[in-house]
Amino acid sequence: MSLTNATPLEVAQAARLGSRKLAVLSTEERNAALTAIHKALADGKDEVLAANAKDLEAANKAAAGGTLSASLVKRLDLGKPGKYEDMLQGILDVRVLEDPINKTTAKTLLDDNLTLSRITCPIGVLLIIFEARPEVIANISALAIKSGNAAILKGGRESSNSFAAIASIISKALSSTAVPSDCLQLVQTHDVIADLLKQDTYIDLCIPRGGNKLVRYVKDTTTIPVLGHADGICSAYLCDDYPADKATKIIIDAKTSYPAGCNALEQLLVAESALSTSLPSIAEALLQKGVSLRCDPASLSALKGKLDAHSATLLQEAGPEDFDTEFLDYIIAIKTVANLDEAISHINTHGSHHTDAILTTSETTAKTFLAAIDSSSVYWNTSTRMADGQRYGFGTEVGISTNKIHSRGPVGLEGLTIYKWVIVGDAQVSAEYGAGGKAWKHQVLPVGEQEFVAKDEEERELLRQFRAKKGQ
Amino acid sequence: MSLTNATPLEVAQAARLGSRKLAVLSTEERNAALTAIHKALADGKDEVLAANAKDLEAANKAAAGGTLSASLVKRLDLGKPGKYEDMLQGILDVRVLEDPINKTTAKTLLDDNLTLSRITCPIGVLLIIFEARPEVIANISALAIKSGNAAILKGGRESSNSFAAIASIISKALSSTAVPSDCLQLVQTHDVIADLLKQDTYIDLCIPRGGNKLVRYVKDTTTIPVLGHADGICSAYLCDDYPADKATKIIIDAKTSYPAGCNALEQLLVAESALSTSLPSIAEALLQKGVSLRCDPASLSALKGKLDAHSATLLQEAGPEDFDTEFLDYIIAIKTVANLDEAISHINTHGSHHTDAILTTSETTAKTFLAAIDSSSVYWNTSTRMADGQRYGFGTEVGISTNKIHSRGPVGLEGLTIYKWVIVGDAQVSAEYGAGGKAWKHQVLPVGEQEFVAKDEEERELLRQFRAKKGQ
Repeated sequence: MSLTNATPLEVAQAARLGSRKLAVLSTEERNAALTAIHKALADGKDEVLAANAKDLEAANKAAAGGTLSASLVKRLDLGKPGKYEDMLQGILDVRVLEDPINKTTAKTLLDDNLTLSRITCPIGVLLIIFEARPEVIANISALAIKSGNAAILKGGRESSNSFAAIASIISKALSSTAVPSDCLQLVQTHDVIADLLKQDTYIDLCIPRGGNKLVRYVKDTTTIPVLGHADGICSAYLCDDYPADKATKIIIDAKTSYPAGCNALEQLLVAESALSTSLPSIAEALLQKGVSLRCDPASLSALKGKLDAHSATLLQEAGPEDFDTEFLDYIIAIKTVANLDEAISHINTHGSHHTDAILTTSETTAKTFLAAIDSSSVYWNTSTRMADGQRYGFGTEVGISTNKIHSRGPVGLEGLTIYKWVIVGDAQVSAEYGAGGKAWKHQVLPVGEQEFVAKDEEERELLRQFRAKKGQ
Repeated sequence: MSLTNATPLEVAQAARLGSRKLAVLSTEERNAALTAIHKALADGKDEVLAANAKDLEAANKAAAGGTLSASLVKRLDLGKPGKYEDMLQGILDVRVLEDPINKTTAKTLLDDNLTLSRITCPIGVLLIIFEARPEVIANISALAIKSGNAAILKGGRESSNSFAAIASIISKALSSTAVPSDCLQLVQTHDVIADLLKQDTYIDLCIPRGGNKLVRYVKDTTTIPVLGHADGICSAYLCDDYPADKATKIIIDAKTSYPAGCNALEQLLVAESALSTSLPSIAEALLQKGVSLRCDPASLSALKGKLDAHSATLLQEAGPEDFDTEFLDYIIAIKTVANLDEAISHINTHGSHHTDAILTTSETTAKTFLAAIDSSSVYWNTSTRMADGQRYGFGTEVGISTNKIHSRGPVGLEGLTIYKWVIVGDAQVSAEYGAGGKAWKHQVLPVGEQEFVAKDEEERELLRQFRAKKGQ
């Protein structure tokens, strides 16, 4: 946590060297570092909040002058009741998670005394670029150390005082632990993002945490792999067989429980045959919540006249751009589709491959939808807002990825790991095997709990009978 | 398999559309397409070989004129005994592999009637750029169809006639199957690689199959994720406790069984204390095989005078560049290191993170090495030439990756898949859970064979006793 005046190259090289030392520390050593960081940040609360107050003062002035949004000022504020404590608790939550590294996930006997294992390990060096939200620094530091990765953190300039205070505290805390302080690098220099994004020799993965403008810029600029999502254009396809009350419950949650979320619903596709049955009551409920409906001609004419006159001012005609827009607001685009194929094709073309849902009682229709939609999360009869690492049971979330490789959907600690292949042998060599030589055994060996997987029908029957006897 | 005159954008868009149809085909439909391709290529052997002869004729002329290497001409030749049959057999080998998609790899009960599943699926659209070797088109087509991915294939111009013939046959064969012909696109237009590499909206993964110049160009040019490796600078670290005969066997295999392979040994690091014990006999064996030794001062002086005069002409002084070079030839760089830490640091800095080995009888030393080396494959007492998908038991190999995300080391069919998260619910919504609401169950459910995992200590003991009784 230093080197604030170092060049991006120096920062990246130092992180890389630190990462190799961090990678071989034990679970206990990494957890002890989290304990130390937690304690230091708890002790340093006043110092951090004083620095945060300076950032807030500057931000409030900028907001008054119209150069900063009020919502950004809100995100900056670490002094809101409970926020600092949540940040501290987050570090402890990460500490108790299962260690994601040094796990054997596959094992093969290649030959006698020649064993291949796949063992999880850290990725190496992460580059995290984030906007406001100074608490992210504690969150990401905890995730990085837990998973054995070094991290370079570049925050927005609005929170530079808060960052400096938190960074200095974490740096001091690490100095009494086994984690090299070079493993966490806070970059405070301005205008270095472009140069950091060029360090693909030393940085293994970039995670932008911020709006779609930032993510798009990062994705378009770097050859470092990027984990994240630019847009969250989520859709739901409503079939005519689905009960209106359940559909209303799901759509209201998806659109209104947190419209600024990337998993909020932006488009409702309605089967033609549902226009006059369930759509009106759903639309009425949305209007009651203050949601503007941007309707295609068929849905507009189905709704006109049927809705309460007061709320009908929110009923609007959709333009073509409404079906390619992430509103992040109390607005929804409604489109009529002739059939399942049209719904699938529209979502795969106009969606952002984030999270999409179908509402139907038909298993056949649902299964076709779930298989055909090319998105990181696909749901049958539930709200797109379910897409979240906490809700998926990951304990914590690095972000949501719409990538097509490595990690997709909500990403937990597992997404910050990769594996290496380890062979332990006794001087066997490649030329001994193959045509005319020895044959490979290629026997799959159990790993961890798999030792207690029934190996054959006889053992399966043993378990069945045992369970039947116990009434399980 | 058409559109040879289409623009890179059109090619990529067509592949994307085709990929969505391919993604939902059944195992049987995809396997049937492989059967059809196999039959058509078997029937069309004469046609393909006639086209290949034209390529060979042109290549021989170019080789005679000095504009093409003789080894490239060799790789072009599909008429060599057994080569065409190997290509055909490769298609059948892929067909019998387990279907890598639609597998449930994790399942969680979020709440009653609310289940989260992680299900494997194709990545989408692959871009394969390859040099000579026209048989790659059949190999990659089989892998792509088996894994449900569309593929855009761009070959070298030296084999354009062979490609056109194979492509036309595969295209005809696919027309009688459920696989849309747009799923395999052969690009024959010249100078389109740069434009193809820009289609990151439609192409999900790029796999360059060729020399390090090609791989480096691709990696430096595109924001599409790239799977592969530019260099294979593999090292072995020889400790003084390891028997000279076993060390010789391993090092001879690693260096000489196929020096042009990316997993061939390029550097031998020798513990100081082994300079006078095992190194001389290893060096003698390498010299006997015609390997040039590029030695640092300490190893050079240890070997000078000890080696047979005839072979000693191959004993040379190393320059600094020799420790950053992939020789792909009968050359090895030898460096003396003071201890394990120096060996680890040298390999992590000068190696290419491909495959590295330690030769020692000490478990402690070996474990430190295996953990600290940041390479895709790390070995204890075996040859770096083991790094290969066939040898690892993958059945087939897409390539070897030195990436730090997604797939690392030899990549099998699994590397061409990703997953989606599927939730099946009954109108539960996000706002019902959390503070003040319902609690998540987050109960891990068994997947597939895991139904027969012993669930508790009682069942584990049952299996143990059963196996003990059977003498397993």
